[in-house]
Amino acid sequence: MTEPLDVARLQRRLAEFAAARNWQPYHTPKNLAAALSVEASELVEIFQWLTPEESARVMADPDTAHRVTDEVADVLAYLLQLCEVLGIDPLAALDAKIDRNERRFPI
Amino acid sequence: MTEPLDVARLQRRLAEFAAARNWQPYHTPKNLAAALSVEASELVEIFQWLTPEESARVMADPDTAHRVTDEVADVLAYLLQLCEVLGIDPLAALDAKIDRNERRFPI
Amino acid sequence: MTEPLDVARLQRRLAEFAAARNWQPYHTPKNLAAALSVEASELVEIFQWLTPEESARVMADPDTAHRVTDEVADVLAYLLQLCEVLGIDPLAALDAKIDRNERRFPI
Amino acid sequence: MTEPLDVARLQRRLAEFAAARNWQPYHTPKNLAAALSVEASELVEIFQWLTPEESARVMADPDTAHRVTDEVADVLAYLLQLCEVLGIDPLAALDAKIDRNERRFPI
Repeated sequence: MTEPLDVARLQRRLAEFAAARNWQPYHTPKNLAAALSVEASELVEIFQWLTPEESARVMADPDTAHRVTDEVADVLAYLLQLCEVLGIDPLAALDAKIDRNERRFPI
Repeated sequence: MTEPLDVARLQRRLAEFAAARNWQPYHTPKNLAAALSVEASELVEIFQWLTPEESARVMADPDTAHRVTDEVADVLAYLLQLCEVLGIDPLAALDAKIDRNERRFPI
Repeated sequence: MTEPLDVARLQRRLAEFAAARNWQPYHTPKNLAAALSVEASELVEIFQWLTPEESARVMADPDTAHRVTDEVADVLAYLLQLCEVLGIDPLAALDAKIDRNERRFPI
Repeated sequence: MTEPLDVARLQRRLAEFAAARNWQPYHTPKNLAAALSVEASELVEIFQWLTPEESARVMADPDTAHRVTDEVADVLAYLLQLCEVLGIDPLAALDAKIDRNERRFPI
């Protein structure tokens, strides 16, 4: 029986992965934020010359779908590691932000 | 009694928020990827002139801590919305990526 | 009589500006590259929700035109400062790159 | 006898290069801004795990020096093409920005 897949479990896997390779000294918040933005740009690169309509169909091509999924994973990996080193709960942060946005942008 | 806070529930809140404001036409994968990278850069901006040591202490200042948490929320918001429109499960994507990285970077 | 406006003169103005404020210790190549990418994202932010057609008309609105021009200046400022600290001639670098691209992408 | 290397000449080379390959339809301001930010992130990637001190020595290694110079060229290429399609003079924009910054950050 496997554990359910949730954010805490992924953060634990990422922390163990980095610790086993002695990568923690590189994982300053500054470096992790830079790495996150680099991975986000690799996502943008996939879409940069596409029309809006073409961009809506990227998952129809298996190679592109794999590439997009891979970059999404990289962005999430650095976001979760950044949250880990800073002690931020990402889901609670987003929940609170949606609350604020509901007041900021009333319907 | 409230629902537990998980990725699916946040994606539902984000989808309802966008739908209530008729923002879905703007949420092409191309635009969401760009918005994600812009938010990731706003995180980088907080750290850009800090030394590695200063970057490790950003949460000690309440204003900076709030700003970092807010930008983390924005990055996660666009990542989850991108995954929603593309049909990607972000947690499964990351779990599979860690598996691949374990083979790619053996200890 | 004023000097002609060229890259070398702008690099001199930028260096004097930074020196007069004791900002050079912050201007490591790593920090300047991060600042450059942050400014490039501020340009992207202007365009992120626009259609391709709307993006082609941004200069028709004086406020947006000013904002775009300002961000272009910021990107160029950090690019020239990065080149200065690294000893790179940006115009020669681009000229050589176009030569390589002509061989890489034959007509 | 060759023409002096200046921004106008590089913009002409870039425009001829794109026209010869029928790439102009892709060169909307929105796409060029995205491409610029992607190239800026490729610069960041070179520095992302380096200490400030290591980042100051990147040009000592010939391979890294070539890679940095190549990415600088790519950033400048997209910046000049963006300026071309928008009718912005990048050197005048930066000169005016330094004037404004001198008033904004008095010594």
